[in-house]
Amino acid sequence: MKLLLRIKYDGSSYCGFQYQPDDPTVQGVLTEKVSEAFGFDCTITGCSRTDSGVHALGYVAAVEPQDISRRDENWCSIPVEKVHRAVNMRLPCDIAVTGAALVPDSFHPRYDTVAKEYRYVISDGVCPDPFMRDRAYRIRRRLSDAQIALMNDLAGHLVGKHDFSAFMASGSGVTDTVRTLYILEAKRADDSTVCITAKGDGFLYNMVRILTGTLLDAAYGKIKPEEGALILESRDRKKAGPTAPACGLYLAKVEFAKEIDFKAI
Amino acid sequence: MKLLLRIKYDGSSYCGFQYQPDDPTVQGVLTEKVSEAFGFDCTITGCSRTDSGVHALGYVAAVEPQDISRRDENWCSIPVEKVHRAVNMRLPCDIAVTGAALVPDSFHPRYDTVAKEYRYVISDGVCPDPFMRDRAYRIRRRLSDAQIALMNDLAGHLVGKHDFSAFMASGSGVTDTVRTLYILEAKRADDSTVCITAKGDGFLYNMVRILTGTLLDAAYGKIKPEEGALILESRDRKKAGPTAPACGLYLAKVEFAKEIDFKAI
Repeated sequence: MKLLLRIKYDGSSYCGFQYQPDDPTVQGVLTEKVSEAFGFDCTITGCSRTDSGVHALGYVAAVEPQDISRRDENWCSIPVEKVHRAVNMRLPCDIAVTGAALVPDSFHPRYDTVAKEYRYVISDGVCPDPFMRDRAYRIRRRLSDAQIALMNDLAGHLVGKHDFSAFMASGSGVTDTVRTLYILEAKRADDSTVCITAKGDGFLYNMVRILTGTLLDAAYGKIKPEEGALILESRDRKKAGPTAPACGLYLAKVEFAKEIDFKAI
Repeated sequence: MKLLLRIKYDGSSYCGFQYQPDDPTVQGVLTEKVSEAFGFDCTITGCSRTDSGVHALGYVAAVEPQDISRRDENWCSIPVEKVHRAVNMRLPCDIAVTGAALVPDSFHPRYDTVAKEYRYVISDGVCPDPFMRDRAYRIRRRLSDAQIALMNDLAGHLVGKHDFSAFMASGSGVTDTVRTLYILEAKRADDSTVCITAKGDGFLYNMVRILTGTLLDAAYGKIKPEEGALILESRDRKKAGPTAPACGLYLAKVEFAKEIDFKAI
């Protein structure tokens, strides 16, 4: 039996999710605090790497006792619907468990993911918003409705099953670069905020940030929407737009074949 | 001529608005950065003290050259609608100017205030929200509709013109403790947030935070709504509820006899 945690975090102070020996990471903090809550060392497996400064609204991680001999049906000594309390009271205020669930040992939060949804937040008000610092990409000129329409025109050429090599940063070592993008859409959320939603069966390294930079290039007239297909075909990172900053990116939701019923009371 | 600035700030890192020689304050930072923008020393006069950790959405401050001989009709060398840019490029990311206006020398942002509106944000979701840390008062039990109704029942006994001594922290030296509360209302904003709006012609030291603590006491059944009048009459701070934490408080809006047309393009 594995314990799944649904986690929300402000990534501003972390060097991403994945453990690093010398830098603060979400996995590092979680491992320590979850182990404290259970009273024995636990192993945390994440659903995704997130970059330094990237946030999460619905990250999913699996917990298991580090000691294999402890891994029986009853190792989770805390009632699952109360796990969030035991862990949150120990976590720093920028990370919170929002629900927990028990799943079979065979479940893997990364390999069993069927879809991920990201949100990219752009702050385009006349004045910067102090409450959105480190939580949105601040651009100085307000995006017009026509510019947002150009972004969505280009997005229409990118959704579907494609080789997204042109939208992948180097260094990940991934060889299968075909992904299916179900949703890619820019929408004005309020007078000073535009949100991009990207949902797909998986994402390459920095893919959402490069997609965002490319949509913005379309808004600025640097790329024509109909060039989307050419950029994909080129498989050339240089043909796509710049990588938008990490601070605007949120891992919003992770979906599995069977919906997980996370509990918190 | 004075230059008015409308300011938004996240007060988490500041010991309040008012200048203190050894601690970071909003006035201290503003004085330095506005002076830098104009190229000569400026004096900043605020509309209100705010406590350490309190936030502002629409604070108003007046700017004048420190050197009286500079105070002519043309001292503001930056076009008023562009002042926000010159100042914001110098300000730290937790303070922003959201508009500017020119007013006669006789105008005073504190004495000419006819009404102030505060917002108090309570976070009552099952799980803490990492994005609301330092920006809301976190309580562990969700407020029911019935509890919010009790808060509003008590609020109904407190609105109007009263001696609010019972809702004033000691130490301010204020002797006229009569104020008119136009609005005091608790409302669920979303599934994990309750907002209290307090609007009045003026507020005593810690008054909104004590009002909030007292409304919460009504929610918890510690005070009956109809005791509101008795608490006011007692003029006894001990009869009112506790002082709610600073982090939930926002100075939302300041109103003057004549509406100010703040500009930012």
